[in-house]
Amino acid sequence: MDIRVICVGDELLTGDTVNTNLAFIGDRLAQLGLALQGEICAPDDERRIIDALHICQNADVVIIVGGLGPTIDDLTRPTVAKFLGRQLQLDPAVRDGIRAYLGVRAASLPADALDVQAQVPEGAQIMPNRNGTAPGLILRHHRTLWALLPGPPRELIPMFNQELLPAILPQTQADWDAVTLHVCGMPESTVEKQVRNTLGDTGGIHLAFCIKNDNIMVRLSQPCSCRHEILEQAVHALRNAFGYHLMPPPHRTAAEYLGAILTERRLTIATAESCTGGGVAAALTDVPGASAWFPGALVTYANDWKTQLLGVPKQTIDTFGAVSEQTVHAMLDGLLNNYHTDLGIATSGIAGPGGGTPDKPVGTVVVGAAATNNAWREVKTFRFNGLRDSIRARTTATAINLMLANLLNH
Amino acid sequence: MDIRVICVGDELLTGDTVNTNLAFIGDRLAQLGLALQGEICAPDDERRIIDALHICQNADVVIIVGGLGPTIDDLTRPTVAKFLGRQLQLDPAVRDGIRAYLGVRAASLPADALDVQAQVPEGAQIMPNRNGTAPGLILRHHRTLWALLPGPPRELIPMFNQELLPAILPQTQADWDAVTLHVCGMPESTVEKQVRNTLGDTGGIHLAFCIKNDNIMVRLSQPCSCRHEILEQAVHALRNAFGYHLMPPPHRTAAEYLGAILTERRLTIATAESCTGGGVAAALTDVPGASAWFPGALVTYANDWKTQLLGVPKQTIDTFGAVSEQTVHAMLDGLLNNYHTDLGIATSGIAGPGGGTPDKPVGTVVVGAAATNNAWREVKTFRFNGLRDSIRARTTATAINLMLANLLNH
Repeated sequence: MDIRVICVGDELLTGDTVNTNLAFIGDRLAQLGLALQGEICAPDDERRIIDALHICQNADVVIIVGGLGPTIDDLTRPTVAKFLGRQLQLDPAVRDGIRAYLGVRAASLPADALDVQAQVPEGAQIMPNRNGTAPGLILRHHRTLWALLPGPPRELIPMFNQELLPAILPQTQADWDAVTLHVCGMPESTVEKQVRNTLGDTGGIHLAFCIKNDNIMVRLSQPCSCRHEILEQAVHALRNAFGYHLMPPPHRTAAEYLGAILTERRLTIATAESCTGGGVAAALTDVPGASAWFPGALVTYANDWKTQLLGVPKQTIDTFGAVSEQTVHAMLDGLLNNYHTDLGIATSGIAGPGGGTPDKPVGTVVVGAAATNNAWREVKTFRFNGLRDSIRARTTATAINLMLANLLNH
Repeated sequence: MDIRVICVGDELLTGDTVNTNLAFIGDRLAQLGLALQGEICAPDDERRIIDALHICQNADVVIIVGGLGPTIDDLTRPTVAKFLGRQLQLDPAVRDGIRAYLGVRAASLPADALDVQAQVPEGAQIMPNRNGTAPGLILRHHRTLWALLPGPPRELIPMFNQELLPAILPQTQADWDAVTLHVCGMPESTVEKQVRNTLGDTGGIHLAFCIKNDNIMVRLSQPCSCRHEILEQAVHALRNAFGYHLMPPPHRTAAEYLGAILTERRLTIATAESCTGGGVAAALTDVPGASAWFPGALVTYANDWKTQLLGVPKQTIDTFGAVSEQTVHAMLDGLLNNYHTDLGIATSGIAGPGGGTPDKPVGTVVVGAAATNNAWREVKTFRFNGLRDSIRARTTATAINLMLANLLNH
């Protein structure tokens, strides 16, 4: 099964938009055992779009994302129609649907801008868009299924799940038997070494490693023609070797895993954040159902807020600095004593670009995790390389992993 | 100037990693007036990588990202060497550099894993890696410059800026004269209509629109052969038409622009967040230098935290609900009265997937922005479509835009 994606849009090639649609589509297909064979990003330029269509024309399924809007730079619909030799025709039902979706706003837009999205290549199957105006389109041409999807994720995601998958699944068969394992709280080099040592010669199993912040993904795959037990045995061996560092499915992020453990043990957690500025709290509340175990956070970016809200002694900050293990200990004390959760996370660091000193250069970060009543506590200093964004993201990931590792140990 | 990017890695096609490297490279090139002509994502598969190399072989510059590591799925180096007919040779200086970078950790790794990254195609120019082990490589072959960069952003970004750009810039010339304008606080349809009305027939100017959360980018570009004044006049006309909704350069996000205004006016801001869970604070502290104007935030996810930290009357929550304009007004009162900043933002909403009711379905969000001493205040209710992530992200963007619009009006 050869599935390709073409993403159309200047904004993807000028860096104005990060291509999250590719990751979404790849992930959905991978969950179904379907391997995306490649992706091409093309600018809003007819010639380049046609180049991409040519490259993909022998695939079984080509998913084309973006460029379906009403504006002059939206070229996907006419270009695909031209490439496949189909006429564009106004579809009255689509036009009425667009007008109904827009409601009163329709009156304020020029009629041609409204109707252009209702121009449909002959023979196309319409995928209704419940979250925007541009309909999705499916065109079957010789042995290839061409699918056109709108670019905005909130339009693409439901349309992909509800309309496109049911249309393509009956004609697909899985290529790969694959398992992705998510490891937390270990450095990448250790993970890789341990996987190699555990599996030895992996035989027909294909291994891929990938790191995102401090979460490491290990993907094991083999052609469907191989015996499934081989993969199962490998996963079993890795589960034994990695223990709690291997997150049980369906958890894909340390925050999700942490949330599940807190729910199970009926524990609550709060954060006291300096350099992460609310990033740890935001990551925790990304998890659906976080309200069951996360009552809130104190973002104490300024030193006087650390004192006012967390009772960190001014003398501690003056003596050791805001970025010190002493200050993070005091933040944890204040958090757990005043706000009465079972667990607490605290962060303080220098994310840059300013604020570094010879002693504490940019990237110096102190992270703490603690349980109430001094049941246990761990405070550690790190030095991260990289830019402000990356230092903040790694601090957030490290804080969640530090909590997770301690919870799993206690 | 034809510049292409090839990104190599199963993780990009299985959705385990979002391709932020493409956005980074596209953005850096766009800032230099260089238009990326396309991108291809290939899996860790020699045949697919060679397909991608074939497609790009007539370009002036081909930037290949990823697959340079020491593991068995890292195929970029040998595949490019094979494609260009170059032998791989152990480079002793690179090997020593890798051992020096790893320090004591080198002893714990197998020698072949260490040395594989020191295998360099003959004639390659080395780009040192100060943040990892895999060196970057530049190969000049006929008229094409092939550049190989490591995939981890913290290795790629400094190498791209410090090593690759100086190597390619002398042979480049800009293709496009382009300006990207960033509009805040207006719906996309209005932006587009106003751009069309203002510019009329845009003649040779190519327009592209792109929305990310509530920030809208309008990119105007024309071939360098056109007169620069045409573009300048268009930008001037748009500045007049959009007024303060058009962010002045170099600001690209509403948070950056807000930070600049706060710095200039010597104002401070804090946030009181429920459904965004620290996301507004995290977005504000993404801005370098935020400590000058952002002392902190109260993330009051649970109702009793709203009462304890912000003094929201329990009766207000019981009568009107936590997601109500009354509660958000009380959150703003508590924030500004107790924590003494000049400005405050508050959010409360139902991000889902649970928690919706017929009256207040998932996506119902209340956002408030206020100045101290009742100088001004705006509290508004929104209904956002989409999934949890998207509702939270739009709430964060809306809150910052609401503050910005009010500040620019007062």
